[in-house]
Amino acid sequence: MMRNIMLTVSYDGTEYHGFQAQSHTERTIQTQLELALRKLTGAETSVIGSGRTDAGVHARAQVVNFLTSSRIPENRWALAMNSLLPDDIVVTDAREVPLDFHARKSAKRKTYRYTIDNNRFPDVLQRRYRCHVPLPLDEERMRQALKLLEGEHDFTSFCSVRSTQKSHVRTIYEAELEADGDGVYHIYVTGNGFLYNMVRIIAGTVIEVGLGKRTIEQFAALVEARDRTKSGITAPPHGLVLWKVDYDHENFLDSVHVIL
Amino acid sequence: MMRNIMLTVSYDGTEYHGFQAQSHTERTIQTQLELALRKLTGAETSVIGSGRTDAGVHARAQVVNFLTSSRIPENRWALAMNSLLPDDIVVTDAREVPLDFHARKSAKRKTYRYTIDNNRFPDVLQRRYRCHVPLPLDEERMRQALKLLEGEHDFTSFCSVRSTQKSHVRTIYEAELEADGDGVYHIYVTGNGFLYNMVRIIAGTVIEVGLGKRTIEQFAALVEARDRTKSGITAPPHGLVLWKVDYDHENFLDSVHVIL
Repeated sequence: MMRNIMLTVSYDGTEYHGFQAQSHTERTIQTQLELALRKLTGAETSVIGSGRTDAGVHARAQVVNFLTSSRIPENRWALAMNSLLPDDIVVTDAREVPLDFHARKSAKRKTYRYTIDNNRFPDVLQRRYRCHVPLPLDEERMRQALKLLEGEHDFTSFCSVRSTQKSHVRTIYEAELEADGDGVYHIYVTGNGFLYNMVRIIAGTVIEVGLGKRTIEQFAALVEARDRTKSGITAPPHGLVLWKVDYDHENFLDSVHVIL
Repeated sequence: MMRNIMLTVSYDGTEYHGFQAQSHTERTIQTQLELALRKLTGAETSVIGSGRTDAGVHARAQVVNFLTSSRIPENRWALAMNSLLPDDIVVTDAREVPLDFHARKSAKRKTYRYTIDNNRFPDVLQRRYRCHVPLPLDEERMRQALKLLEGEHDFTSFCSVRSTQKSHVRTIYEAELEADGDGVYHIYVTGNGFLYNMVRIIAGTVIEVGLGKRTIEQFAALVEARDRTKSGITAPPHGLVLWKVDYDHENFLDSVHVIL
């Protein structure tokens, strides 16, 4: 009997060409998961992610699913997978879900976090997960810029020119700045979907607002402009973490195996 | 004219054979600092550290000094060194000190931090800096064990058998456990000096107390026993950070260049 298993997966993306490969020779998170599943179940298994993450981007709670005939109990999957995965990929949860659950198509909201180390010298033990910006940032202006992104917009200005999506209209539910008081800023962006490089272009442009290189008025005009050439740099990948993916409760309530 | 420069140095020890080499072929923090100094000043320069750190051990604020005839202003050293160092070594402070200042001999107190991730699954983005212990730990007992270490003791029980020190008597001023509320424990140990592997053996043995493998009474007897074979495992190096090194104020007050 086929079962549909959903895993929550965290990873340090530093050593990977992203979640999903462009070609078969690249080292990706997806490939590592599929290798571990083959060892564990003996069967070739395709893993579906909630979405791609770029090379060098991390995840606190990426969600994937796969179909399997394996009878491994729900509460054994995480430990079994972790024993086979490299130590920069950690499965933190596993549950059996209805057969029609699809990690990408069923996803309702996603949250990304982009982290800026605004101290003169970077914290060396966090450098792999933060973008170092040593110049002064105007916290309040960055907050104002982020607020302008909330709502439904055509985000062409914040999307790689290499995007192949038909529509660039997305809804951002929340875009907030959190200061940890130690010179570190976290940008949290929650939306119903994200375009190629979107959060990194948002972060890069908001940093330019914080540095005083752009005014709030210019930023507001940029949102309307639908022109990638007018926005800021694409912030480096290592500051970005796929923070969480939300699904409707009905995706899980049918399952008799849910751990609560 | 010779000057004595003191640097505060942070590093991620993951890729290094410790602060100081046993042999000349090993990649060490000291070698990297000396290479950068040679590039910067054109002269061969010997760097003195406050003490060695083992392979894989990190530092938040290691202190080093060196003699140089370079006329680089005090406030330029950190940026200049950082531009030449690999990105897992960051100089965070530089000051000119009296010629008799010696990073090791002048040191009065040192603090180390050992960090335990006590969650079922490790935080993958912190895994390089924490020891993962997935079994339940008794916080109160670990605190009690640490308290027994405070004061002047012969720490032979907590010292590698490879130690070549004449005396194993040291004073621990403070040994404390801090819980961050997220299943993470930090052990902070401050003393006038530390023996080879001492903090890692303390951490390993205190973890065994936390796991219930040793009683407080057994731990107290161990402190008196002066017998390395009776103590616990040497906890892995990656959880350990040289947190800070304290010097007397008179080491600095003479200097006209101190940044306050």
